[in-house]
Amino acid sequence: MAGELNTADAAAGASDALARFASQLHWEDIPPGVQHEARRALVNFFATALAGCRDPAIEVAARVFRPFGAEGACTVIGRRETTNALHAASLNAMSGNVFDYDDTHLPTIIHPTAPVAPALFALAQMRPVTGRDLLLALVAGVEIECRLGNAISPGHYQRGWHITSTCGVFGAAAACARVLGLDARRTLWALGNASAQSCGLVENLGSMAKSIGVGNAASNGLLSALLAAQGFEGPAMPIEGPRGFLRVTGERPDFASLTEDLGRRWALSSNTYKPYPCGVVLNPVIEACLALHAEAPVAPDAIERVELRGHPLLRERTDRPAPHSGREAQVSAQHAVAACLSSGQAGLDQFSDGAVAATARHGLAGRLSFIDDAALGVESATVTLHLRDGTVRSRHVAAARGSLATPLGDKDLERKLIDLAAWGGSGCAPQPLIDALWSLDCRGDAGTLMRLAA
Amino acid sequence: MAGELNTADAAAGASDALARFASQLHWEDIPPGVQHEARRALVNFFATALAGCRDPAIEVAARVFRPFGAEGACTVIGRRETTNALHAASLNAMSGNVFDYDDTHLPTIIHPTAPVAPALFALAQMRPVTGRDLLLALVAGVEIECRLGNAISPGHYQRGWHITSTCGVFGAAAACARVLGLDARRTLWALGNASAQSCGLVENLGSMAKSIGVGNAASNGLLSALLAAQGFEGPAMPIEGPRGFLRVTGERPDFASLTEDLGRRWALSSNTYKPYPCGVVLNPVIEACLALHAEAPVAPDAIERVELRGHPLLRERTDRPAPHSGREAQVSAQHAVAACLSSGQAGLDQFSDGAVAATARHGLAGRLSFIDDAALGVESATVTLHLRDGTVRSRHVAAARGSLATPLGDKDLERKLIDLAAWGGSGCAPQPLIDALWSLDCRGDAGTLMRLAA
Repeated sequence: MAGELNTADAAAGASDALARFASQLHWEDIPPGVQHEARRALVNFFATALAGCRDPAIEVAARVFRPFGAEGACTVIGRRETTNALHAASLNAMSGNVFDYDDTHLPTIIHPTAPVAPALFALAQMRPVTGRDLLLALVAGVEIECRLGNAISPGHYQRGWHITSTCGVFGAAAACARVLGLDARRTLWALGNASAQSCGLVENLGSMAKSIGVGNAASNGLLSALLAAQGFEGPAMPIEGPRGFLRVTGERPDFASLTEDLGRRWALSSNTYKPYPCGVVLNPVIEACLALHAEAPVAPDAIERVELRGHPLLRERTDRPAPHSGREAQVSAQHAVAACLSSGQAGLDQFSDGAVAATARHGLAGRLSFIDDAALGVESATVTLHLRDGTVRSRHVAAARGSLATPLGDKDLERKLIDLAAWGGSGCAPQPLIDALWSLDCRGDAGTLMRLAA
Repeated sequence: MAGELNTADAAAGASDALARFASQLHWEDIPPGVQHEARRALVNFFATALAGCRDPAIEVAARVFRPFGAEGACTVIGRRETTNALHAASLNAMSGNVFDYDDTHLPTIIHPTAPVAPALFALAQMRPVTGRDLLLALVAGVEIECRLGNAISPGHYQRGWHITSTCGVFGAAAACARVLGLDARRTLWALGNASAQSCGLVENLGSMAKSIGVGNAASNGLLSALLAAQGFEGPAMPIEGPRGFLRVTGERPDFASLTEDLGRRWALSSNTYKPYPCGVVLNPVIEACLALHAEAPVAPDAIERVELRGHPLLRERTDRPAPHSGREAQVSAQHAVAACLSSGQAGLDQFSDGAVAATARHGLAGRLSFIDDAALGVESATVTLHLRDGTVRSRHVAAARGSLATPLGDKDLERKLIDLAAWGGSGCAPQPLIDALWSLDCRGDAGTLMRLAA
C-alpha cells in the first residue's frame, strides 16, 4: 500500500494522502515490531490512567460532565460509573496524561496514546470492534498525529502550543474514522472537523486547564469522525491549506515530512515510556541518584554541593530551585536530586505536593549547579556529589532507562501498570488487564477489555 | 467600578483585570444605549438562528449529538426537541452563525453574539436567571471577546484564525461565569479553561467544519465556567502570559487595548447588523443595485459592462467571478450584482446554490470590473452600468444600511426576524419572541423566553 502513495507533491495533497493512508492501511502492512509497540503503548497508557483516575482534575470534570451525559455503557478507567462515549474518551484521556507520566514520541515530545486510545476504546464500547482493528486504528492515528507534529516541530511547541492536544485531536479523528470504516473522502472530512477543534496552550501546563485540552482532543477527535460519517463536510486541505493547521500553528512547516516514507517509517518506533513521573530529560539524573543511593545512602546535610553535567536542555527545562507543587517538581532537577538521593525512590510519591515540602526543608537547591555539555545526548548525564567531608562521589549514566537505546522492557511496563494501579487506589486487578492487552489482537470484541480497567 | 481598574500594567494583569471586570460589572454601570444594543443583538441573533436552524450542518450535528446528550430542558432554536445545555449551546450557536448573517463587531469582524448568547440561554434553562442578569452577562462576555479580538487584529484573522470561534469561547466563558456568580478568581479560571479550548481555522469557512468550531465556542465556554465553578483551576495569565492566548495566536499583540477605557468604551457600540446575507463590504454595492432596479429594471443582456468603485477591500474580498455555492456567492460581487439587479431582492434566496446557477447563466461576471478608491470607506461604493444602447446609469451609496453611520433600526431588526423566521420554516411565531426580547430586562426568568423560539 505504501508504494501507492505519491509523496512528490506533499504540500498539495497531504491531507488527502494521510486520509487515504488511514483508510487503507492493513494490519499486514504494519511490521510486527510496530504492532507490538502499539500493545506496549496501551499497557503504558492503562498504567498511567489507573494512576491518574482519582486526580482532582478528573474528579471535577467527571462531576461537571455527569448531568449532561446520556446513560452510556462506556467505562471510565478506574471508576465504577459508566458514561457516554464522548465523556469517557475525554475523562480517560485526562487520566492517562494528567501526571505527564504517559508515553513520549521523542522527535515531537507528543504524548501520543492519551488522546487516541481513549477515543478508540469508547467507540469500541458503542459498537463491536475487534482487537486487531483497534490496534490498527491506533497505529494509524498515532502515525498521523506524530507526522503533523514532526512537520511543525520544534517551533509549534516553542511558540506555546500544547502539541499533545493540538495534534492529538487529528490522531483521534483519523483512528476513529478508521474504526468506523470511513472511506478516504470522509476520513478527510474527519481531519477537517478535527482542524476546527485543534487547541491547547503550554501556558496551561501545571494547572488543571491542561487536562481539558487533552480530554477535548480525544472526545473531539471521536466527534470529528462521527460527524464525518454522517456527512458533515470539511475543507479539501485542512492540514496543508493556506489557512490550514500547519501554516497557522507552525513556523515554516516541513510539508515533505508529512508523507515521507509513509507506511515504511513508523512514529511508534520513536515512542518511549517513562520509568519516572518526570520530564524525560531528568531520567539520567534520577537514575544516577538512585544508583548513588543504592551504593550508599547519603544524608542531605552531608552534601556540600551537587554538580549536574548534561545536555543544555537539562538546565533549560529543569533548573527550578523552588517548585511550589508536585507538578512543578516533575520538571525540577533540584527537587528530583533531593528526593531521589534521600529516599532511593522515584515514584509518584516522590513528586507529590507533600514531597516538595519535605525536600525544600533540606535546602539542597542552593547547592546545585549545572554544567552544560552539548556533547551529551539528553538521555545522558553525570551527577557528582561533593560531600562536606571532602569525599567526591560521581555517577555517569550513558543512556537512561526509558530512552530509545535502553527502552523499558515488556516486564518493566507490566510492573509499571501493577505499581500504578495500586497507587491509584481504584482496586482494579492488574494482571487480567495486562494479559488482555498483550493478546488484544486476538480479542473479538475490544470494548469488553475496558471492564477489566473499571 | 471602572475607575478601580488599574490599566497601567495591562500586559501584566490583563487576565485578572478582565476577570474582575466580568465579575464586578453592574447593570447600572452600563449606559442605556449599550443596554439596548444588547437587546438589539439578541433580536438579530434569534433572526439568524431561526433562518439557520434547518441547515444541513445543524441537522447532522443534532443527529450526531442526540445519543450522547442526557435528557435536558434546553431549547434547540426552531426545533421541537430539547436537549442538555452543552448541546443546546452548540447547536444554537451554529444556527445563529451558519449563514454569516449574524452581527459583526466592525473593528475585528467577530460575530460576537452567536458564541455567547446561546451559552447564556442554555444556562438560563438549567437554573433561573433574570433577564437583566442575562443581558448584563451578554454585555460583559461580548466586551471580553471583542477586546481579545482587538488586541490581536488584524494579524490573527489574516494568519488564518476564525476569530469568532477563537475569541468567542472566552466571551461565553466570561458571560457564563458572571451568571453563575463566580468571583474574580474563579472567573479567571474560566478564562483559563477557555484558553485551553480556543480554536477555529479560516480554512474551514465554506464547509460545515466551520460550524463545529463556532458551536464549540459556545458549549466549551459554558463548560469552562461550569468547571471553574467546581474548582477546576487555570493558570494565572491565560491571556497575556508568555505562552498564553495573545502571544501564541497573535502577531505583536496590543496588550494595552485589553483594558483601555474598560467600563467606559463598549464593544457593543461598534456592533452592526447585516441587512443582506453577505460580507459587509458588499452592502453598498447591493444597496446601489437594488436602487437601480427599483428605479427601472434592467435586463442582464442589456448590460455591456459594470463598474464597481469602492474601497480596495471590496475587490480583495469579493472579486469572485465564478462562485460554486451559495456560501461562496455571499462574498462574490459578481454574483451579488447579477442577482440583485435581476431580482430586485437580496435575501437568502438570492444567495442560495440555486441562485448561483441562475446568475451564472447571465454571464455578467466577465463584464464586471473594480476600481479601487481608498478615499471611500468600506460602507461606501458606486455602481455604474454601461448599457449596450449607450445609456450610462450610476448609483452612489455613501453609507450603506447596516453600517455604523446608517444602522438598521429596531423596526428593521424586527422585520429581519419576521422574514427569517418565515424563511427558516420552523413555524415559530415571531411577534411574541420579539416582544419578549425587547422587554427581556424586565423578565424574571430569562430561560422561559426560549420556549418562544422553539
